[in-house]
Amino acid sequence: MKLQSRARRTLVSAGVAAAVLVSAVAAAATGSFGGGTPDRSAGLAKQIDPDKPRNVILLIGDGTDESIITAARNYEKGADGAFALDRLPFVGDMTTHGLKVGPGPDYPIAYVSDSAPTASAWSTGHKTVDGRVSQGPSTADTVPGQDFRTVLMDWRDSGRRTGNVSTSEITDATPAAAASNVNARACQGPADMANCVAARKANGGKGSIAEQLVDNEIDVILGGGLNRYNQATDAGPSVLDYAEDAKDYRFVSSAAGLDGIGSLGGGPVLGLFAPGNLTPRYSPLIATPPPGAGGPTARCSLANRGTQPSLAAMTEKAIDLLDNRRGFFLQVESAMVDKQEHAADICGAIGDVSELDDALEVALDYRRHNPDTLIVVTSDHAHSTQIVPNGSSGRQTATLLTADGDPMSVAYSTQAVGSSHTGSTVRVAAVGPQAANVTGLIDQTDLYWTLKGHKPSKLHGGGKH
Amino acid sequence: MKLQSRARRTLVSAGVAAAVLVSAVAAAATGSFGGGTPDRSAGLAKQIDPDKPRNVILLIGDGTDESIITAARNYEKGADGAFALDRLPFVGDMTTHGLKVGPGPDYPIAYVSDSAPTASAWSTGHKTVDGRVSQGPSTADTVPGQDFRTVLMDWRDSGRRTGNVSTSEITDATPAAAASNVNARACQGPADMANCVAARKANGGKGSIAEQLVDNEIDVILGGGLNRYNQATDAGPSVLDYAEDAKDYRFVSSAAGLDGIGSLGGGPVLGLFAPGNLTPRYSPLIATPPPGAGGPTARCSLANRGTQPSLAAMTEKAIDLLDNRRGFFLQVESAMVDKQEHAADICGAIGDVSELDDALEVALDYRRHNPDTLIVVTSDHAHSTQIVPNGSSGRQTATLLTADGDPMSVAYSTQAVGSSHTGSTVRVAAVGPQAANVTGLIDQTDLYWTLKGHKPSKLHGGGKH
Repeated sequence: MKLQSRARRTLVSAGVAAAVLVSAVAAAATGSFGGGTPDRSAGLAKQIDPDKPRNVILLIGDGTDESIITAARNYEKGADGAFALDRLPFVGDMTTHGLKVGPGPDYPIAYVSDSAPTASAWSTGHKTVDGRVSQGPSTADTVPGQDFRTVLMDWRDSGRRTGNVSTSEITDATPAAAASNVNARACQGPADMANCVAARKANGGKGSIAEQLVDNEIDVILGGGLNRYNQATDAGPSVLDYAEDAKDYRFVSSAAGLDGIGSLGGGPVLGLFAPGNLTPRYSPLIATPPPGAGGPTARCSLANRGTQPSLAAMTEKAIDLLDNRRGFFLQVESAMVDKQEHAADICGAIGDVSELDDALEVALDYRRHNPDTLIVVTSDHAHSTQIVPNGSSGRQTATLLTADGDPMSVAYSTQAVGSSHTGSTVRVAAVGPQAANVTGLIDQTDLYWTLKGHKPSKLHGGGKH
Repeated sequence: MKLQSRARRTLVSAGVAAAVLVSAVAAAATGSFGGGTPDRSAGLAKQIDPDKPRNVILLIGDGTDESIITAARNYEKGADGAFALDRLPFVGDMTTHGLKVGPGPDYPIAYVSDSAPTASAWSTGHKTVDGRVSQGPSTADTVPGQDFRTVLMDWRDSGRRTGNVSTSEITDATPAAAASNVNARACQGPADMANCVAARKANGGKGSIAEQLVDNEIDVILGGGLNRYNQATDAGPSVLDYAEDAKDYRFVSSAAGLDGIGSLGGGPVLGLFAPGNLTPRYSPLIATPPPGAGGPTARCSLANRGTQPSLAAMTEKAIDLLDNRRGFFLQVESAMVDKQEHAADICGAIGDVSELDDALEVALDYRRHNPDTLIVVTSDHAHSTQIVPNGSSGRQTATLLTADGDPMSVAYSTQAVGSSHTGSTVRVAAVGPQAANVTGLIDQTDLYWTLKGHKPSKLHGGGKH
């Protein structure tokens, strides 16, 4: 029965970090003697590790705030269930605001931001304006700001391997911010440079996002966006030909092709599995005006993803290829949560929260034998999905049958048409060396320092616990 | 300038827990040498305390989720500012779902709940249905469920002092759940018992919520709701007369009257400062259809609260009176955040988040000299306020000038008329003994065990760090 809810959840707990698992087992045990949970203080203390991580795995759910996480948890696991991301020991809230173009240096605050400045904030430690990719603010959208070095590039420059994985076009804002600098996120391929004229290679610039990801020699690039790579560079050949011929990338375009790559010995890997974005796990269920889409018995249906790999499969292969003695930095994005929320598609959004969580499970599996790995799971910005009472008069609503066997309703109402980002803080959770730094309230620019490896605090000694 | 945002926030940090403060100072210092924040691992480890607390102060913001906290922070402190609640070292997410009436024992899940079952969950460790006050579920709203002992009553029974403070009627659901058992939250006074006939004292029941709070001999009761106490009991006299004559309560009705109470030596204290709810800090600014209420230069204005004390003043007095060698349990609620969100009143909601935070500052002041005090700050359920892009086409919007000097817009759109609770997890933050137990994902029924004093974990030794 549902009255003693935690007992049920702790019983289904699959091992994450050892201390958390032990707590869960203990909770289940004491639960059987009449309820109650044991103190977790000592277990949490054991998880605090001030060392610099050898590896960093940063997992991003685009637009994945507490509200869509709760909706996805209810649907997939039940209200008393838990995702892997729920079991990470350290949790905080992260602010996501950006700036607006202006005369500077005191740019106005943008309380709701897009993925470009938010991903740039953790990638560079600097705030910037909507649409801008790891480049500072300026007086107008088309005027370039200052290029900032990204944390992925810092890791690369220190001799570590790097990876960049997304379910969107790999040239979309979040993966772009990890390893390119450009004034407009739209400048994804060499044919898309209308708003970034100075950045064209023909004009002496760094080129489009597609070209920069290749020029920056990221070891593993996996996602969508083949159409961008088929565009001709200013020099003539396609970006894909340039990647293969000038930069030794091995190109794959299917899950089977990706499976066939065994190591990085043959060169870096460029996997592009769709012309545009990859297909979400579930087919769409688009919210409609009340009484809304779906209903009390509606479940989501799996989409046909053809030969595309799942996010977990891409993550597993990326980790396999990047694993080495010196360490690596890997960014993984479940991108379609955001895009399906924009479309008021509750099934699409829920399914790709699960994609994120499955990718996290892969990362946690690796960490079990590589505890010097920092794993951070967070989001770039909050979004529009609200869990509302059944029968809500929200503008666009949908109802689904959850894993509990009960109906859950959601609404999308931020705009008259479509659905927008929102400005709430987002959840940040972590495990591993320096993971304690995500607790409390942090900003996305603070996360940069955690990913980079903090300056050690001289005030507390910093010994292990 | 706003680019290196954290430096600004950490500079304004007013001391909370020592280690957090030290980290802030260190951050500001390293910031002046080119940016970067120090590792907080050791500081967090020092804050882990597995002892059982001598005192518990539980602060509730009704309907106070991350979204309204972010809006209030932006308005009051700026996007890079911080409330006291932002500086607590341990943070988690808390699930808030309840149950629906039914044949049982497997009651359907309610994914959006009201304040009665959510407050009952942390008060008793049990889930229940909408409208029910620390009493289990049943087949219909008017059929009583099983009474559950509350954590406040457990502390009282162990010889500790207790307090119950709210800015709503003290008989409203959240303060009611702390120390009464009844099947319908509407049964606030003896004249309100239509849905709780069996609970009437004339029928051998425990009586209305107003009567139960008095019968349960809470040492300090402060809030609104005088009208309920002026109702006649089944035995004839008003509840207020009964409280004074039979239970030795001293009644006060103004801030000055409350100031005049120096100790509990003269008996327990019943302070009722308004016929109904207390007045929120700010006068209302009600969101309207686009282009919305307020504007890019609009600020909230202080309401005239007459002789009513602030929540911080009530909290300070309650702590002064309750402080004793054996310890106390105090629940403090900032109730009007929820009620003003229902009214789409952004100023009312923001102001009473600040009321909550000011009350927390009082509690933290006390904890500075009484570190064996557990302080928990959380909410009962999520709500409707969304921070949206300026110019949003949300159903009802408002725009305010924030502390940054920039315009922030919010929208209320969950319902065609009015605004509803939502089903997201809420933030839970804590400092003090056992505070580490709020990290990760917990349920409101888990919080019960933390407030009660966990079963000590035998698996980890539980030594101090």
